[in-house]
Amino acid sequence: MTKLAVVAFGGNALLRGDQKGTYDEQVANVRETCENLVGLVKQGYNIVIGHGNGPQVGNVMLQHDAGEEKHNVLAQPMHFCVSETQGSIAYLIEQQLKNVLQKHGIQKNILSIVTQVQVDKADQAFQNPAKPVGPYYTNEQADALVREHGWVFKADPRGRGMRRVVASPKPVDINNWEIVERLAREGNIVITVGGGGIPVIKNDQGEMEGIDAVIDKDLASATLAVKINADDFFILTDVPNVFINFNTPEQKKLETVGIPEIERYLEEGHFTEGSMAPKVRACIMFVKNGGKEAIITEATQLKNSDAGTKIIS
Amino acid sequence: MTKLAVVAFGGNALLRGDQKGTYDEQVANVRETCENLVGLVKQGYNIVIGHGNGPQVGNVMLQHDAGEEKHNVLAQPMHFCVSETQGSIAYLIEQQLKNVLQKHGIQKNILSIVTQVQVDKADQAFQNPAKPVGPYYTNEQADALVREHGWVFKADPRGRGMRRVVASPKPVDINNWEIVERLAREGNIVITVGGGGIPVIKNDQGEMEGIDAVIDKDLASATLAVKINADDFFILTDVPNVFINFNTPEQKKLETVGIPEIERYLEEGHFTEGSMAPKVRACIMFVKNGGKEAIITEATQLKNSDAGTKIIS
Repeated sequence: MTKLAVVAFGGNALLRGDQKGTYDEQVANVRETCENLVGLVKQGYNIVIGHGNGPQVGNVMLQHDAGEEKHNVLAQPMHFCVSETQGSIAYLIEQQLKNVLQKHGIQKNILSIVTQVQVDKADQAFQNPAKPVGPYYTNEQADALVREHGWVFKADPRGRGMRRVVASPKPVDINNWEIVERLAREGNIVITVGGGGIPVIKNDQGEMEGIDAVIDKDLASATLAVKINADDFFILTDVPNVFINFNTPEQKKLETVGIPEIERYLEEGHFTEGSMAPKVRACIMFVKNGGKEAIITEATQLKNSDAGTKIIS
Repeated sequence: MTKLAVVAFGGNALLRGDQKGTYDEQVANVRETCENLVGLVKQGYNIVIGHGNGPQVGNVMLQHDAGEEKHNVLAQPMHFCVSETQGSIAYLIEQQLKNVLQKHGIQKNILSIVTQVQVDKADQAFQNPAKPVGPYYTNEQADALVREHGWVFKADPRGRGMRRVVASPKPVDINNWEIVERLAREGNIVITVGGGGIPVIKNDQGEMEGIDAVIDKDLASATLAVKINADDFFILTDVPNVFINFNTPEQKKLETVGIPEIERYLEEGHFTEGSMAPKVRACIMFVKNGGKEAIITEATQLKNSDAGTKIIS
């Protein structure tokens, strides 16, 4: 039976800090990632793609800020900005993946879905917003925005000004995961949970509404992987393996590790917060909830079936 | 057997020129439209929703323009901007339609799809770009953009500056229409071809690539309706019926009209270009290609099964 995989990669694989951000650069980056994804298709996987949107949603928020100032186009909430990035990033991936698959003689439907992800409005994260988003502001501008929107600000540690911070709550439910599962198991490639999903809560009237927050894209993809009963979960990053004692003489590459071992390393602080630690946690969550293998690796390794660091039960 | 309908409505139903454009206003507008769509669901239709994005993509292009100037976030091509509006508009519609259906005790999956629509690069429209898009520029700015991007400009007739014009080519194929049809016939509501679709062409290498253009949203929705073999095609607008001799003493409301009759009216110039004429043409195209009824009406009329002007063979 064909295996089902969820593959998550970062928004910075597509919009890179070392480039200008032209459309042609973005297309070239996404194409490179798609070339690597072909490795998984050739291994016979059915695939669901999740992706980040860090640099992209940052840019959209800057564009909203500038558009209001220059053209009087009112800035929209962050969750609205996330939905815009889902449209644009999925478009880039779908088009290039289709082109690349065609070049390899593979015919598959690729479907891009705009996806809301439900979070709990009682999530503790809302008590302590910590994720910086959007433009830098002066103290006066920040004060005005606190009064206008009730936003929370923190001073940028590098002195660039005041920066809005939002919560990073846990994903609780993924809209339309049943349809995603069915389409993927039929052999269609589905692109979903972009940027970790558009964060929504159930309000006091029992209706869904958007909320400004950042859902960790690896955790959202892992949650989807659990819901659709995926066999394997891949997180693509910029290193081929996870290391312990990284950048020390005792540095050691991890190949296949069980949950107790990787949990110990996590506790011992081997993995950087905001970088490898959340990826490892997403993998642990997937395996503890029935997943077979969670793999952290570099996209270029996907042609090898023994690529990367494998986390197993 | 349950009937299948494609329903198209304008982007200005959601982002109205007489409002400021706040998020709350947009939510209230989309909610009102969704309340009206319930009428069709209650009539027992399976539904695919197409929508415009005129005001929205205009705003996104202004935001890109301002973001480049203020924050050095490079402006992206127009087809990229269309993909952003597909994300945001579908998000608003999906969320409010779900809430409204729930209020009416109706449980349905609603799926929002980012949709590329193929046009022919040899389409005559590319020889005569005529659709104004994006910000107004000075002559000097326009000249620079002609050199940089090869864009085409025309002077705004009301003297507000130079405005970029793009082609409005015919939709030829709609990505993923087979999946849209199947999901809709199962009773799921699908939101697709936003803004007429992201315009793409097959390039000389046989690959798909985006192209800056505006695909008429009614024609894109009608093309989808033909492809998925929809029974009925609805275009929602701001009048309950189509009229001939509009605003004259001989004004006459059209109820049920056959193709020869409506084609005669079209030829006689009863319908305004850029407004009712393209809607009528989209309806004629649908009925001539096997559709049963094409209906032009106001959203509030959808609760009545005999609403609006019906175009039949």
